[in-house]
Amino acid sequence: MNPTIGILGGGQLGLMLLQASIDWNLRIHVLDPDAQASCRHLCTHFQQGSLTDYDTVYQFGQGVDVITIEIEKVNVEALEALQREGKQVFPQPAVIRTIQDKRLQKQFFRDHNLPTADFVLTDDRADVSRQVAQNPDLLPAFHKLGRDGYDGRGVQRVATTADLHKAFDAPGVLEKAVDFEKELAVIVARNERGEVQTFPTVEMVFHPELNLVDYLFAPASISESIDQQAQTIARQTAEAFGIVGLLAVELFLTKEGEVLLNEVAPRPHNSGHHTIRANVTSQFEQHWRAILNLPLGDTTGYQPAAMLNLLGEDGHTGPARYEGLDTVLAMPGVFPFLYGKAITKPFRKMGHITVMDPDLDTLRQKVAAVQGAIRVVSE
Amino acid sequence: MNPTIGILGGGQLGLMLLQASIDWNLRIHVLDPDAQASCRHLCTHFQQGSLTDYDTVYQFGQGVDVITIEIEKVNVEALEALQREGKQVFPQPAVIRTIQDKRLQKQFFRDHNLPTADFVLTDDRADVSRQVAQNPDLLPAFHKLGRDGYDGRGVQRVATTADLHKAFDAPGVLEKAVDFEKELAVIVARNERGEVQTFPTVEMVFHPELNLVDYLFAPASISESIDQQAQTIARQTAEAFGIVGLLAVELFLTKEGEVLLNEVAPRPHNSGHHTIRANVTSQFEQHWRAILNLPLGDTTGYQPAAMLNLLGEDGHTGPARYEGLDTVLAMPGVFPFLYGKAITKPFRKMGHITVMDPDLDTLRQKVAAVQGAIRVVSE
Repeated sequence: MNPTIGILGGGQLGLMLLQASIDWNLRIHVLDPDAQASCRHLCTHFQQGSLTDYDTVYQFGQGVDVITIEIEKVNVEALEALQREGKQVFPQPAVIRTIQDKRLQKQFFRDHNLPTADFVLTDDRADVSRQVAQNPDLLPAFHKLGRDGYDGRGVQRVATTADLHKAFDAPGVLEKAVDFEKELAVIVARNERGEVQTFPTVEMVFHPELNLVDYLFAPASISESIDQQAQTIARQTAEAFGIVGLLAVELFLTKEGEVLLNEVAPRPHNSGHHTIRANVTSQFEQHWRAILNLPLGDTTGYQPAAMLNLLGEDGHTGPARYEGLDTVLAMPGVFPFLYGKAITKPFRKMGHITVMDPDLDTLRQKVAAVQGAIRVVSE
Repeated sequence: MNPTIGILGGGQLGLMLLQASIDWNLRIHVLDPDAQASCRHLCTHFQQGSLTDYDTVYQFGQGVDVITIEIEKVNVEALEALQREGKQVFPQPAVIRTIQDKRLQKQFFRDHNLPTADFVLTDDRADVSRQVAQNPDLLPAFHKLGRDGYDGRGVQRVATTADLHKAFDAPGVLEKAVDFEKELAVIVARNERGEVQTFPTVEMVFHPELNLVDYLFAPASISESIDQQAQTIARQTAEAFGIVGLLAVELFLTKEGEVLLNEVAPRPHNSGHHTIRANVTSQFEQHWRAILNLPLGDTTGYQPAAMLNLLGEDGHTGPARYEGLDTVLAMPGVFPFLYGKAITKPFRKMGHITVMDPDLDTLRQKVAAVQGAIRVVSE
């Protein structure tokens, strides 16, 4: 277990990967464009540089044996070159390439008979209008940018033809809106020897406006048959990609009890942060196990858990201050995790809080108490 | 929660403190004499230097707001000077001074009516003989060096007068050997506001020759009344010291069902490593909570756990290689933690392995399987 590993990206996911790597004393280099990235002091070697520049990524990769990512917006051509030269690149560049582009991703689901909402690929804004005219049943829909959408950016709701002007004037995918009961997620790990292991299905509650996870519950309150559907689709998706590493699979549970693929990410994911505290193996340790071709770990949860994102307060921009931290630290089974970002901005992800309790009602009460107690403001 | 913290010592305990600090994004400087110390890449600032040199410790302390330790063999005078100048030094220098010297430590127990084995303080080897002549009931006994004993060094068994030549020719304590049933340990945390919290009592099995923990079980298999005694003594001891931080309390359970203090350490301890995986709050997070005057965390264990020290194989000195790691990683609920020491030596602590299982018999079987599967050898 002596390879030198490189991570593209040194934000909060990198931070949690580094924390998990300490158990096995892994040697890790980190590349991030931000000289003040969260990871800068917690790795064997930190390099400031662009993740999307071919030469930077290629040269960074020359210094390590195994390359992985904590963000999918990276230069895939450089990763392909490194892979050709014998470096281990996990997840594989081909998987990243497909997932990077929501058009290729949706098409991949369709090509592999993975259940997903109906959609059409669109070239530009005019094309969206043309296709809606031909197929009015697509509305209400979401128009998603093919590339570079992230955390709610790059998605527009097109409810009626009156909204068509909001569509992106760039290649995208127009996806029929799912009238869902719940949003679910399953994190899957797969290693090189083909072992596959899923985490328990979680239930995500999105912020009504921000299109990012407000909080989640693990395990999801769903019937065993729905759970089986979700687990099966997640596993089939990971196997279809043949991914080595983690695949975070976001799903819709429709009002008719059908489970549909929403989208996937080839890396640790916000929907698995609670596993650091609540599960035998965390998603971060599982990522290392997967990409180092080690046996995958037991994913059992110890207790029901919730995870809240700690977002920067609206109207506050500047050096971050955490109000109410002492209060939440006094609550049993409440674990704040701060990402170390110096500056808070409205709705910026500044940390998360895991809440655990054996009793579901008490868990919900604790979540409400935490939400009422803590705020990230500027100094 | 923005102080800069300094840790004296950058070995495995420092490593685990750093790992726990990542959740709260603490800014940490580390001082260690070894330029290759485990912590060197995992802190905000690493400084190579002596822990026992006044100037080095004093100057290191000037650069931080809060100073703590991961080893008690440090320059206490420098810590006292830093404390006088308004730095927060936890555990307090006075506590470190008492505990550093086994003579002062034992006398402290006696002065505070804390139950402990009978003993006499001895000036030198001749004094040991004199005192045994006056009080032959002290034998069989252990002669312990007052200062600088560590991990089994600095302890000699004096079973009969024929062993008197083995006694140290330096200030020490001659302590009547306890005919014990079990060795127990309780880790206590106390913060500045006087909150005290104990971890569940564990049962340690020492290596028959090496005088270091071979493995431990948590919780200990003892009656509730014995457990209460152990917990009460541990709490009283922490309160007697008025310590801010962790106090690891080692205890004997005698064959008569009496609980006696053996010795204490003012820091995270080998007897609490399993808490990283097995307890709601780990001893390392609890240390941060205690010295930063935050509310202490819930210490409940999720499942019965065992901890095995991973010692360098006898006869092997050189670059370390871990045989059987893949095998133990495939066992559910088995968590190796490697300290990143480049060189293995016979019986050197190279890591530890936490083993968990809801069922005690299965737990014991897993421990045996792990012991049979893994070895640290030289390359």
